[in-house]
Amino acid sequence: MSSEFDLIKRIQQRIPQRSDVVTGIGDDACVLAPSVDHQLVCTTDSIVLDCHFTEDWPAQDVGHLAMAVNLSDLAAMGALPRWVMLSLTLPNHAPWTQPPWLDKFLDGFLGACPDVILTGGNMAGGPLNIGVCLMGEVPSGQAIMRSGAQPGDALVVTGHLGDVAGALALSDQGGIVDGPLERRMKHPTPRVRVGQQAWGVVHAMIDISDGLLADLGHMLEASSNQRMSALGAALWLETLPASAGLMEAFPDPKTRWPLQLGGGSDYELLMSVPSSQIEAWLHSLHQMDVPASVIGRVVETPGIDLIQPDGQRYDAPLAGWDHFRST
Amino acid sequence: MSSEFDLIKRIQQRIPQRSDVVTGIGDDACVLAPSVDHQLVCTTDSIVLDCHFTEDWPAQDVGHLAMAVNLSDLAAMGALPRWVMLSLTLPNHAPWTQPPWLDKFLDGFLGACPDVILTGGNMAGGPLNIGVCLMGEVPSGQAIMRSGAQPGDALVVTGHLGDVAGALALSDQGGIVDGPLERRMKHPTPRVRVGQQAWGVVHAMIDISDGLLADLGHMLEASSNQRMSALGAALWLETLPASAGLMEAFPDPKTRWPLQLGGGSDYELLMSVPSSQIEAWLHSLHQMDVPASVIGRVVETPGIDLIQPDGQRYDAPLAGWDHFRST
Repeated sequence: MSSEFDLIKRIQQRIPQRSDVVTGIGDDACVLAPSVDHQLVCTTDSIVLDCHFTEDWPAQDVGHLAMAVNLSDLAAMGALPRWVMLSLTLPNHAPWTQPPWLDKFLDGFLGACPDVILTGGNMAGGPLNIGVCLMGEVPSGQAIMRSGAQPGDALVVTGHLGDVAGALALSDQGGIVDGPLERRMKHPTPRVRVGQQAWGVVHAMIDISDGLLADLGHMLEASSNQRMSALGAALWLETLPASAGLMEAFPDPKTRWPLQLGGGSDYELLMSVPSSQIEAWLHSLHQMDVPASVIGRVVETPGIDLIQPDGQRYDAPLAGWDHFRST
Repeated sequence: MSSEFDLIKRIQQRIPQRSDVVTGIGDDACVLAPSVDHQLVCTTDSIVLDCHFTEDWPAQDVGHLAMAVNLSDLAAMGALPRWVMLSLTLPNHAPWTQPPWLDKFLDGFLGACPDVILTGGNMAGGPLNIGVCLMGEVPSGQAIMRSGAQPGDALVVTGHLGDVAGALALSDQGGIVDGPLERRMKHPTPRVRVGQQAWGVVHAMIDISDGLLADLGHMLEASSNQRMSALGAALWLETLPASAGLMEAFPDPKTRWPLQLGGGSDYELLMSVPSSQIEAWLHSLHQMDVPASVIGRVVETPGIDLIQPDGQRYDAPLAGWDHFRST
């Protein structure tokens, strides 16, 4: 059994120094020097045993996920991630409070974004819960909100949709549990660089953590409120990007679309891009080696129209992820 | 059962607007405008069911405690608390996810420091865990570290010590469970204003959350490392401030001292004050209506000497609070 102070010292030893961290781990609070003419962008997300991961996950994957879900939020604002604080609630027994678990956890956590310095945190005893507070910066006025969508904008998503929902569906069916879909679940790739390139180009941006439809709904609601007139969207189902693994596991589009529309935890970015900029923006994404797809358009009619390849509307019952939904 | 989004809207409605919060609750991350020529001071502390509080606690006390423990950390740096993020992990059943619990929780949480704006957060399902990330500011270079103690400094503590340890001891003995000591446990008073007055006066400051001896030890260790020569302290046991409730419950000093020296969760401030400033500083504290006591002195001999009224050394076995200690 290692003591709380031993574990904190163990963490402290692997953190590099950087001039913007005036005081890091080891005082009552950290002291940070923010950049001139920048605004702060901050998010917090906890990951919880049996909600976001299970006991059989390698510690490194748990660490990666904890950082990645927060990086994705900052990416969606166009921010540069800089500092992070970690609040670990650990059960009072092995493997959680042992150096090997903690070391591997930190490998994944810190490895997910070497630009981020761990500046402080907290440890408590209790059911496993990993709280992360990630802070970043953006040049003043450049943060990209979810509320800026305009009629006529193209809707663009990065990467592929539905892999995590597919992995969960396969696991429910007793199918493959260590295929490419599950690896995606344990190892999402937050689009940090994409966000920073989006300044001045993208009208609105949001990360897809609750599912495409739910998060598109959030973007449209926020943008409608901002404009004080209703907005909607048309999505072309045949353009929804699917990974090879998802296509193989769910070849029937009628089975696949619900996973891509409703499944959460993809941590891709959804962007509303002015049509005049769309070609240049897709070119930029291509140069960053980021797969991207135009999947629809923002319209002045409220609601989200899902359009099948034959032009018919698609009316599957779908819902976004809700941690408290009674199912 | 309320949905996650309903609960978030419910929270959002009671948060005031302020010009330094560019974007608050409702986007992927908050956007904050820091003050020119200031540094950021940030802390995170989670409070956990059955570790820091129990199911029978009123929601308002849980909320107050969650904010107070973080305020105390910022106070110990001399920072002005400004923004907070809240990561709620709530069991998927009543009362936790119900509006009445949440409303009362927020009454206590937000009421603990009206200067602080709730700018974002996160909800997940799981064993009750309340993660708080509190951010504040200090004029650049003015943060008060724990590492600045100098030989000859007077050691000053605010308020009274040992009430929470006393409440726990009484409860273990099956004694009073709703006396003044327990009320202190549920309702600590972070010394936010004291911290801000300490700029340029106090050499070193730390909040007493792990217990006086443990936190004095942290201050001496950090200050020794900073000076690259060992420091110690002498404490005069008769000067340890005790509340009327503690004196009544534990009239024998030999029983009371261990509670005052070893007990955690007092959330008072321990300060190392240059002897030339001590009178003026005690006068300032008095004007702020903050009880304060000089309890000892920093010396150049390593170790902490506990001196009894008769001048004899006191050698009780004592340990600071450690969340992972095996008892």
